[in-house]
Amino acid sequence: MPIEAVTPSVDCGRYPAKRILGEHCVVEADIFRHGRDTLRAVVKWRRKDERRFSEAPMTQINPGLDHWRAEFPLEENARYTFTIEAWTDRFSSWVSDLRRRAETGQQDVSSEVAEGLAIIQKIRRRSKGSDRDLLTSLMSRLRADGMGQQPQAVIDLCTSDQLAEVMLRLQSREDATVYSPELDIIADRPLARFGAWYEMFVRSQGTQPGKIGTLKDAKRRLADIKGMGFDVVYLAPIHPIGLTNRKGPNNRLECGPNDPGSPWAIGNDFGGHKAVDPSLGTLGDFDHFVNEANRLGMEIALDFAIQCSPDHHWVKEHPRWFYRRPDRTIQYAENPPKKYEDIYPINFENPDWRALWEEQKNILLFWIDHGVRIFRVDNPHTKPLEFWRWLIEGIHAEYPEVIFLSEAFTKPKMMRALAKVGFTQSYTYFTWRNTKWELIEYLTKLTKSGMEEYFRPNFFTNTPDILTRILQEGGRPAFKMRLVLAATLSPSYGIYSGYELCENEAALGTEEYKDSEKYQVKVRDWNREGNIKDFIAKVNAIRRSNPAMQRLTNLDFLPSDNDQILFYCKKTEDMSNVLLVAVNLDPLHVQECTVHVPESTIGLRPGDKFTVKDLLTDAAYVWSAHNYVRLDPQVEPAHILRVER
Amino acid sequence: MPIEAVTPSVDCGRYPAKRILGEHCVVEADIFRHGRDTLRAVVKWRRKDERRFSEAPMTQINPGLDHWRAEFPLEENARYTFTIEAWTDRFSSWVSDLRRRAETGQQDVSSEVAEGLAIIQKIRRRSKGSDRDLLTSLMSRLRADGMGQQPQAVIDLCTSDQLAEVMLRLQSREDATVYSPELDIIADRPLARFGAWYEMFVRSQGTQPGKIGTLKDAKRRLADIKGMGFDVVYLAPIHPIGLTNRKGPNNRLECGPNDPGSPWAIGNDFGGHKAVDPSLGTLGDFDHFVNEANRLGMEIALDFAIQCSPDHHWVKEHPRWFYRRPDRTIQYAENPPKKYEDIYPINFENPDWRALWEEQKNILLFWIDHGVRIFRVDNPHTKPLEFWRWLIEGIHAEYPEVIFLSEAFTKPKMMRALAKVGFTQSYTYFTWRNTKWELIEYLTKLTKSGMEEYFRPNFFTNTPDILTRILQEGGRPAFKMRLVLAATLSPSYGIYSGYELCENEAALGTEEYKDSEKYQVKVRDWNREGNIKDFIAKVNAIRRSNPAMQRLTNLDFLPSDNDQILFYCKKTEDMSNVLLVAVNLDPLHVQECTVHVPESTIGLRPGDKFTVKDLLTDAAYVWSAHNYVRLDPQVEPAHILRVER
Repeated sequence: MPIEAVTPSVDCGRYPAKRILGEHCVVEADIFRHGRDTLRAVVKWRRKDERRFSEAPMTQINPGLDHWRAEFPLEENARYTFTIEAWTDRFSSWVSDLRRRAETGQQDVSSEVAEGLAIIQKIRRRSKGSDRDLLTSLMSRLRADGMGQQPQAVIDLCTSDQLAEVMLRLQSREDATVYSPELDIIADRPLARFGAWYEMFVRSQGTQPGKIGTLKDAKRRLADIKGMGFDVVYLAPIHPIGLTNRKGPNNRLECGPNDPGSPWAIGNDFGGHKAVDPSLGTLGDFDHFVNEANRLGMEIALDFAIQCSPDHHWVKEHPRWFYRRPDRTIQYAENPPKKYEDIYPINFENPDWRALWEEQKNILLFWIDHGVRIFRVDNPHTKPLEFWRWLIEGIHAEYPEVIFLSEAFTKPKMMRALAKVGFTQSYTYFTWRNTKWELIEYLTKLTKSGMEEYFRPNFFTNTPDILTRILQEGGRPAFKMRLVLAATLSPSYGIYSGYELCENEAALGTEEYKDSEKYQVKVRDWNREGNIKDFIAKVNAIRRSNPAMQRLTNLDFLPSDNDQILFYCKKTEDMSNVLLVAVNLDPLHVQECTVHVPESTIGLRPGDKFTVKDLLTDAAYVWSAHNYVRLDPQVEPAHILRVER
Repeated sequence: MPIEAVTPSVDCGRYPAKRILGEHCVVEADIFRHGRDTLRAVVKWRRKDERRFSEAPMTQINPGLDHWRAEFPLEENARYTFTIEAWTDRFSSWVSDLRRRAETGQQDVSSEVAEGLAIIQKIRRRSKGSDRDLLTSLMSRLRADGMGQQPQAVIDLCTSDQLAEVMLRLQSREDATVYSPELDIIADRPLARFGAWYEMFVRSQGTQPGKIGTLKDAKRRLADIKGMGFDVVYLAPIHPIGLTNRKGPNNRLECGPNDPGSPWAIGNDFGGHKAVDPSLGTLGDFDHFVNEANRLGMEIALDFAIQCSPDHHWVKEHPRWFYRRPDRTIQYAENPPKKYEDIYPINFENPDWRALWEEQKNILLFWIDHGVRIFRVDNPHTKPLEFWRWLIEGIHAEYPEVIFLSEAFTKPKMMRALAKVGFTQSYTYFTWRNTKWELIEYLTKLTKSGMEEYFRPNFFTNTPDILTRILQEGGRPAFKMRLVLAATLSPSYGIYSGYELCENEAALGTEEYKDSEKYQVKVRDWNREGNIKDFIAKVNAIRRSNPAMQRLTNLDFLPSDNDQILFYCKKTEDMSNVLLVAVNLDPLHVQECTVHVPESTIGLRPGDKFTVKDLLTDAAYVWSAHNYVRLDPQVEPAHILRVER
């Protein structure tokens, strides 16, 4: 019996699909068999680490297309597995055949009743108690004189809800087919899909010029970050930094005595990946910092970079983990023409790879012990996929709540492969998608191509490595516009600190920041004039109070008559929360046009008028299928309109 | 190392894809790995029944998308299997790294040269003869003084074609990944895809009213059928017909002494599925008939219907093969409200199913022994899919040239499932697709949805059961129009005899023929006035001399400004044969409009003019991107235009 086109399923079941704890997992499939008999099908599911399956009956949602559906609840933050079982329902087949005969005028169904009695008798033999009473009584009624001449009476006797339930429960599944392979579902916690991230360097959280910021300083900044409405504070590495070949400002090879070096050059005599740089504070300070973040309702994400400085203890303890030049020196990291003289990459193909893998897991477990449940993983695409699968599955077996964000800016297939092997979220190409058609094409791919089953985007507006031209040239209006896009197109998004101050000075002709924080300590006035902190707070509040903002795939682009105005709808499945967002993609000019709202998109009848409320300005408008919008980037770059019922 | 999105592959490799003997099977896949090393990949293929794989190197057709391709020849009418193997090419990785260094201005590559020497040395150890000489000489040149200061010279030394070939051949595939599962390809003979079929009842091939036609009469008709350009003559069952409950004319229960009965009620005292009805002739007559067809370049297709009359010897010999009513009588076939009192269906779920299966195979082998290589299978969707898989694979193991046509007019998933388990071709919904949008939607599904990998349509214009309303009402112009559609939209198509005479009398209010040949012997004047035999001959000649007509997936619908004019392009991949077909779907009225030919579709530059020749009328026209057409159904219902170069 064919069971085909089962969803959700990623690459024929090779990888798990991702869902969120608390949701129902909807399972669909094509199920059919030869002939005209009635089929039954159930979804069977279990927690992957348990043995007993639960069952939910599938219903045929389109009989002509043999298409079936059921759903099961994801009640735990865990990995589930499911399959489908289908079989022939002899009793129902018999009733349908009888019904067809009655409809086409057959008068004498004595022979059919005799066949039915045989089917019921077989099931009755397996029954007990009240089930048995029910079937015994049914059989004696069917045996009554003259029954064979009353087709409709026979059908009525055989079609009660109670009988259907008993028959479904007791029937043998003689010809049952079970779908193979079993398909896995990861039920992540809600923050895996919906969250606003704030990236910062602890050392730049100080207040006195020339003095390095500490974890205590950073702790004092948490209220400010919370005030903007963020959920996650992600820290650039906080470990001791190597001295050998330490980089000076702007990636210079010469380094002064007070230059702090790149925090990705991990490890010196004070320790490696499991240590806190003494200039930032102690492990105890870190614990206090985490506690304070948690108290404020935020979580801390740590950077996880599998590489080290030449001064890391691994270099002595695990010499085989490194690439050797022919002269036996260790090779530093390179991506010609870029050279990272302060960093040794790790050779994953070394014979001592088991110890290497275990050490990485230990690092994660160490920080999990210190309250961290989120890791932003640096350059995962340069390490083997099989390693990530092993590492993430291993951590999730004990700590299913851990979130892994993949920082893979590489070719699309590899980015997707990392998501398939287990990364919870991924960085994206969002920063380089600026025009209307680029955005529509990319978001359609992310939300409707099938990759939404396993790949969750996290739209960062900027990173310490990426200050795009539109931000460099578009100034404050561009910062607001790109924030609205990131925060409303993707349920997870983030900014790198300084964005709220509209910092946009680049190293000439590049996308790198001038005087990058990667090599210098910065001290900023976080309330500097021109900041967009209130705007960010408002957008984050809108995200939080509108469930439509908290999902990825509920995005529909709608027509607008201006290539500079992107117009889209985000809505909940029950349409209780419908948002219409219009964004002026041009930070330099006022743009206006008509935007179109196909009534069916928002559940209205043709000609209906409706009220929309701009959640950024509180203004209300009466809208219909076609509406005029005008967006002045100097005022607000966008409307975020809620349809009021 | 991920190897993903491998094509061709049907349902994750559960079923074989179908190709044609003599073609190359193009294999594509996404292949990538972490880091920057160079990959190599090969397709490995073999005949399914052989052990040794052959290899063809894959090339990366889009490096940014990690997309690879290769092809292998299908030189035999056989089942093939293939997989993909990929590994890291250390030598090429080293050369690319060197090239990147040279490009970015690195002067001293001594250390890189030393690394390269180690890689080459490892490969040289496995080499012999001239390979060894080549590598030894390369190494000594690389060791020359000052080489480390001449990056370009090193690169030049390492990039000859000869060296590339040797390296590819000798390198160890230490980290090779092999795709699993192996994927199967069926290479059918060309007739499996391209052929024109003619269906007839032998008994209606006589010339004297009241006298049953014989195989000898039918043999005399073959030249006429050949004259119309057909490739396959498909016969309704030729076996002895039961007497019990034999049907009279128009499916009446009463039957006169001279009524021949339905040929699908197979079996009487003269034999069953392996016998020829004595009134048609002998097995020897059948052999002569087959020989004559073959001599004319045609093949015979037999009907294969797994059912029988109450008088078939199976009823006595295999009583367990049948459905029993509670009173132990055998149940005749029914599809309420239809009753087939003259036919017993077979119960495939009987305990003696092995003997049943074997007997069916023996029937096919019997007729194969008598020169038959094509079977049109009656109602396969009422029998188990697993049975068909077993039967067809079993026959193909010995006779790969056998073609199975599935007569399953049922729900789409089951029709597709039958094709997946092995049927070579299938009947379709073509007869019920009449409007422009119905045809475009259906053909797009058949040619571009993925089902073209395993499902080959055979477009019958009519059958003994199907005389559609458009033929009933549209008369001769409709017969010509529907013939052009069938013959040019699908490489395999067929007519049921009488079509060439435009027979269109239906039983009132149905799609059934009046006085259906299923229950009566007919004698026709095959050259009756108003016949369209010359038209059919012309269309079949066009199909034969234009390779573009002989493929399924090379169909593109083009815009036409009239909903009654269907316009499409069929072309060969190299564009040496490009046809443009415009069909007036309205048999009752002249239709005209502008049709549009996007230049890129036919390989021309914007503004180019080109000559088209109408292969039906020999008229020539100068065309451009936009052209006027006018089609009078009383003259010709279509243009079949060839683009002349």
